[in-house]
Amino acid sequence: MEVGDNVKVATNDGEMSGVLMPRYESASEDYIVIKLKSGYNTGIQVGRIKSITKLQKSEPAATTARAPETTEDKGLPRIALISTGGTIASKIDYRTGGVHAALSASELYASVPELANHASIDPEVLLSEYSENLRPDHWTMIADKVAEKVRSGRYRGVVVSHGTDTMHYTAAALSFALQDLPIPVVLVGAQRSSDRPSSDAALNLLGATVFAAKSEYAGVFVAMHASTSDDAIACHIGTRVRKNHTSRRDAFESIDVTPVALVRNNTIEMQKSEIKLAKRSEGSGSLATVKTKFDGKVALLKYHPGFDPSLIEHAAKAGYRAIILEGTGLGHVSKECFPALRKVVDSGMMVCMTSQCIWGRIRMTVYDTGRDLLDIGVVPLSDMISETATVKAMWALANSKDPKKTMQENLANEISSSIPI
Amino acid sequence: MEVGDNVKVATNDGEMSGVLMPRYESASEDYIVIKLKSGYNTGIQVGRIKSITKLQKSEPAATTARAPETTEDKGLPRIALISTGGTIASKIDYRTGGVHAALSASELYASVPELANHASIDPEVLLSEYSENLRPDHWTMIADKVAEKVRSGRYRGVVVSHGTDTMHYTAAALSFALQDLPIPVVLVGAQRSSDRPSSDAALNLLGATVFAAKSEYAGVFVAMHASTSDDAIACHIGTRVRKNHTSRRDAFESIDVTPVALVRNNTIEMQKSEIKLAKRSEGSGSLATVKTKFDGKVALLKYHPGFDPSLIEHAAKAGYRAIILEGTGLGHVSKECFPALRKVVDSGMMVCMTSQCIWGRIRMTVYDTGRDLLDIGVVPLSDMISETATVKAMWALANSKDPKKTMQENLANEISSSIPI
Repeated sequence: MEVGDNVKVATNDGEMSGVLMPRYESASEDYIVIKLKSGYNTGIQVGRIKSITKLQKSEPAATTARAPETTEDKGLPRIALISTGGTIASKIDYRTGGVHAALSASELYASVPELANHASIDPEVLLSEYSENLRPDHWTMIADKVAEKVRSGRYRGVVVSHGTDTMHYTAAALSFALQDLPIPVVLVGAQRSSDRPSSDAALNLLGATVFAAKSEYAGVFVAMHASTSDDAIACHIGTRVRKNHTSRRDAFESIDVTPVALVRNNTIEMQKSEIKLAKRSEGSGSLATVKTKFDGKVALLKYHPGFDPSLIEHAAKAGYRAIILEGTGLGHVSKECFPALRKVVDSGMMVCMTSQCIWGRIRMTVYDTGRDLLDIGVVPLSDMISETATVKAMWALANSKDPKKTMQENLANEISSSIPI
Repeated sequence: MEVGDNVKVATNDGEMSGVLMPRYESASEDYIVIKLKSGYNTGIQVGRIKSITKLQKSEPAATTARAPETTEDKGLPRIALISTGGTIASKIDYRTGGVHAALSASELYASVPELANHASIDPEVLLSEYSENLRPDHWTMIADKVAEKVRSGRYRGVVVSHGTDTMHYTAAALSFALQDLPIPVVLVGAQRSSDRPSSDAALNLLGATVFAAKSEYAGVFVAMHASTSDDAIACHIGTRVRKNHTSRRDAFESIDVTPVALVRNNTIEMQKSEIKLAKRSEGSGSLATVKTKFDGKVALLKYHPGFDPSLIEHAAKAGYRAIILEGTGLGHVSKECFPALRKVVDSGMMVCMTSQCIWGRIRMTVYDTGRDLLDIGVVPLSDMISETATVKAMWALANSKDPKKTMQENLANEISSSIPI
């Protein structure tokens, strides 16, 4: 009996069958692990096992699927699909029981044959990386590649497949790097790899493609499951979205706004949204703003009781040019942080405030703490979410002559207007 | 005309009346600010103003209200009310237009006369501080004070009024410091100060008191508005709650579990919850676990693209004994962090993993990144929220001989059980 074999395990409590998985080296030796047909793993205590029967031998890894040949003749809208890695382009490696970034864009395309009914797709593999490993220089690569596709004037839209862990950071990065896009650029990921029966990869990719091909609106969006059921894909504004659950298929949520659209049965249902979207203006291949550089020297620091103000000074010493403080409530940190903040602000560092509450707007004029911080020179960021603020600061430092002013201007729907107080 | 006067302002668009507020020094000079009857401030552009009329002179600050004399004779349940500061104990200071921690516990009591129908309350002011300024040593003070009240055997429950910014951190701290409580300890705050018509202070305090007095269950809870309307107060488990909105009255939400109870019309409605609560066992005045010390040398670091691994090494150099990593997705940080993590773990630092997704459970055996981190010795914290994990690490370092083991044990409902994989 080998890892990868299909087995039936009998215990005192009953039987279950599935693929025998390798035991991860640091896991307890008292368990064996079976991957069930549902795609989930389960551990079975060795002491409970009465018998194990081999049902079927380990299958070799699936051979590379062939993408359908792209045919421009069909008159279908043409979509560029840029693959960067992540779960959506992954399959389980039965040698280690883990998930590896493995599928190429064309394999991904081939695994969702329904795509061919809606669009003619040009796939291209740009990166093959887990998204937690992506850095600001990867955002530049992705933005440059998207700009190239847009400039070609050949596409109705661009779809970027991406790991979900930092997809919202990349979506914000593209939103600032490529403002005034003439067509939609839609990021899409999967919470479960595409070879699992419970995978959300196919439906998400289909929804993203439909939105990229048929939407009347342009800009940067994130398309993911709208609920745990398979009935609709939500399209979020690139600067207003966050991964709010570790594993659910509807992990991505719009913050403080409504998702702009749902894609249901391959049809776009625009939602009543607070965000005014730009209309698509394709054909020109023109791009008003292409500023794809990022200065990674920005630290996102989350305040908590017991927070050490020396972290702030360390960031300054380490050459950081900006700090995004994820403060409490309406935008606060303790008074113990004030001297360190005064010091780094006076030395020319940009320090901006967001809230760890995630939802809602900071208001630093309500309490003494907030007013003291404004006096120190901390820049209030209204209702910008802290992940977007971090990306924007990296972009502003590289592209703006007055980054503090830029941080407070609404460039890509990252800030909602509000009354002065 | 003076700040604090009740005025009527006529503009081209109409009239509005309210209290003339001081302009905050760094605010634009083009606006005057009026506090409307609704409790909200509004700015009016000076250029739009046609006339300003004084309706009523500024009123002196309200004199200290007198609490009703506590009468044990009524046979009402006796509740200890410990005031620590925050908005719930605040009123607006018309000199600065800001909110100051000002009300004493007895003033607070006096401002909610309905309390006298449900409980006989012994108020005590312990602290008068904005909660963003509270430190781990304040948690010790509060826990010791609660322990004193519980040990006296005189109370049906303890209510702790607290600023909302870090109330969830304090709730977690009390949950670990005072395990196996014989009676309920209920933290309560307000999102809007108690002299504002829109204040949630009275209803929250009433709900917290009813739950403290009448609940069949013991433990540490947080009681706050269940929705934006004034119909119900939700009671959350102290280790499972988070402030998820900067300003809404229902900012506090249970994470990954259902609130254990709603208080509606002064009646407790227990909810179907995944959490098994301990029954109250009052009268004994006994306290099984009183470990109120915290070691503040714990850093909560939120990972983001561009995160500088030198922050990890800085924390070690600055004498930190533990780091809680708020990783992405299922519990990841980039491979660039691995060398720094290996170094600090090998030097004896405890490094634990939570997720910035907030909802859901980390699973570090699914992807290579997670398995590499487990190999380095990073401690996975299942579905513990990062704020609770930070507090728990501070508590474990001060009270456990094996903090890593303690971090992975469920002590106060901070971890839900799960299958091994």
